[in-house]
Amino acid sequence: MTEFNIAAQPISPQQREAEDALEATVLASFGNADNERLGFLMQSLTRHLHAFIREVRLTEDEWQAAIEFLTAAGNITDDKRQEFILLSDVLGASAQCISVNNQAYKGATEATVFGPFFVENAPHIELGGDIAGVASGLPCWVEGTVTDTDGAPLPGARIEVWEADDQGQYDVQYPDGRISGRAHLFSDAQGEFRFWGLTPTAYPIPHDGPVGLLLEAVGRSPVRAAHLHFMVSAEGMRTLVTHIFVRGDELLDKDSVFGVKQSLIKEFVEHAPGTATPDGRDLGDRAWTQTRFDIVLAPQGT
Amino acid sequence: MTEFNIAAQPISPQQREAEDALEATVLASFGNADNERLGFLMQSLTRHLHAFIREVRLTEDEWQAAIEFLTAAGNITDDKRQEFILLSDVLGASAQCISVNNQAYKGATEATVFGPFFVENAPHIELGGDIAGVASGLPCWVEGTVTDTDGAPLPGARIEVWEADDQGQYDVQYPDGRISGRAHLFSDAQGEFRFWGLTPTAYPIPHDGPVGLLLEAVGRSPVRAAHLHFMVSAEGMRTLVTHIFVRGDELLDKDSVFGVKQSLIKEFVEHAPGTATPDGRDLGDRAWTQTRFDIVLAPQGT
Repeated sequence: MTEFNIAAQPISPQQREAEDALEATVLASFGNADNERLGFLMQSLTRHLHAFIREVRLTEDEWQAAIEFLTAAGNITDDKRQEFILLSDVLGASAQCISVNNQAYKGATEATVFGPFFVENAPHIELGGDIAGVASGLPCWVEGTVTDTDGAPLPGARIEVWEADDQGQYDVQYPDGRISGRAHLFSDAQGEFRFWGLTPTAYPIPHDGPVGLLLEAVGRSPVRAAHLHFMVSAEGMRTLVTHIFVRGDELLDKDSVFGVKQSLIKEFVEHAPGTATPDGRDLGDRAWTQTRFDIVLAPQGT
Repeated sequence: MTEFNIAAQPISPQQREAEDALEATVLASFGNADNERLGFLMQSLTRHLHAFIREVRLTEDEWQAAIEFLTAAGNITDDKRQEFILLSDVLGASAQCISVNNQAYKGATEATVFGPFFVENAPHIELGGDIAGVASGLPCWVEGTVTDTDGAPLPGARIEVWEADDQGQYDVQYPDGRISGRAHLFSDAQGEFRFWGLTPTAYPIPHDGPVGLLLEAVGRSPVRAAHLHFMVSAEGMRTLVTHIFVRGDELLDKDSVFGVKQSLIKEFVEHAPGTATPDGRDLGDRAWTQTRFDIVLAPQGT
């Protein structure tokens, strides 16, 4: 029986009644909202918040620490840094929200977290083009198809791809205004696509703030498993926001934002320098990798 | 069936499994904390946060609104304004935390919220003294006893009292550095105490920020029921932080921070100008009120 064991702290019927009564009063206060959805959200939030406080028997010092944590998160948040999103991410709330809003549908490819590094209007590349620009890293040939859940190809699907360089940095994290490691392309008449990207690299989420301290306090790493972002849209289909991950990456089971799903882990085949490339490109003395990602979109409204 | 009705949104077994798996992964990530209490808190928080998101099927727009709400709360918070405490208050979280940490014990007086307006080292007054200073309001004679739960008097108990003036403002809310409407005194050999205060007045919590917008959106008032604060301590006894409220106040059932408890509502008897006062004080042409608050302290460690 340690101090945090609930069973060690018996609660009298009189006390339970007082706690129930308080909770009921708070619930009732949200019962008359004109916006019924908002009232429903606040009541559910109230139920879970009170259940949490009562279940853990939150001490006043712990309540104070929570207020200070939120205050510190507010202090560090500005136009460039969003600590509340990081908090949502490391609690798996962002991933769960994505899951709830992208319900499993037949064999449709699973969605995962969007992340903060997508940029509108990334350059267009032709099929087989290179997204790297000035971003450094091991070249990676990526190919696949875009189909519906019956296997019918989806020609002209818009495929946005973006990723960090081998320093674990996205272009927008450099101060020089570079655009690299991102592009968009379109699937061909057979629903096929192919491009040169970079072999994904692991990197930490910003961890010099209160969320970083929290991760450290519970013995968790801020590092994200290596991944390549996709956003795929086609007429009449649900837009898919997802990543692919690298099979064998030792971080797959400790991704700091819980983005990894088994179905999104792909083989990245390594090729020695000099190995012939799929499109005949001469990479000189550079090694390269190759992967395949067959994308299945669910119908809109599913 | 409205859009916020959960039952209207069937969840497939496959989807439920994906949501369960994600939640389990997040829970496991908090399973190795050296600080076991912190790990326990984070796991309970995770369970309730995920249950909330899943239960309400939180949309991505709603998630975004929540992030923006927290960001706005962070922006308005500074040394003088604490929006996260206000948020905790209007969700009843502060009151529930007080309840959990001040468990019902025999006939001990109930605790309620502390509020942000207590000040250390308030002036000492003799029994029968006046706490008002320059604070304006209807004089109020307050008397009572401090005892243990067996009815034995507690002499020398320290009684801190503080309250707003009839403009609904505490001294610290004025820019002139005044100290008024607050004091401390000690119970006498019979555990009795008496002092002149002000008849309590209702006032709103600060509501020009995101918490105010939330209250407005759900049709709730920011106003607190009129009250007089007490903090009572005596050797070997659990320190009591509480208020008394005014019977008949129409705000009793809509106190914005859920501080009201039935046992803390007291009769404030109104006296016409010229009525003899308990201590013979001459109030001239002023009306006054009178109330009684018998304080029962629980033993320390209960």
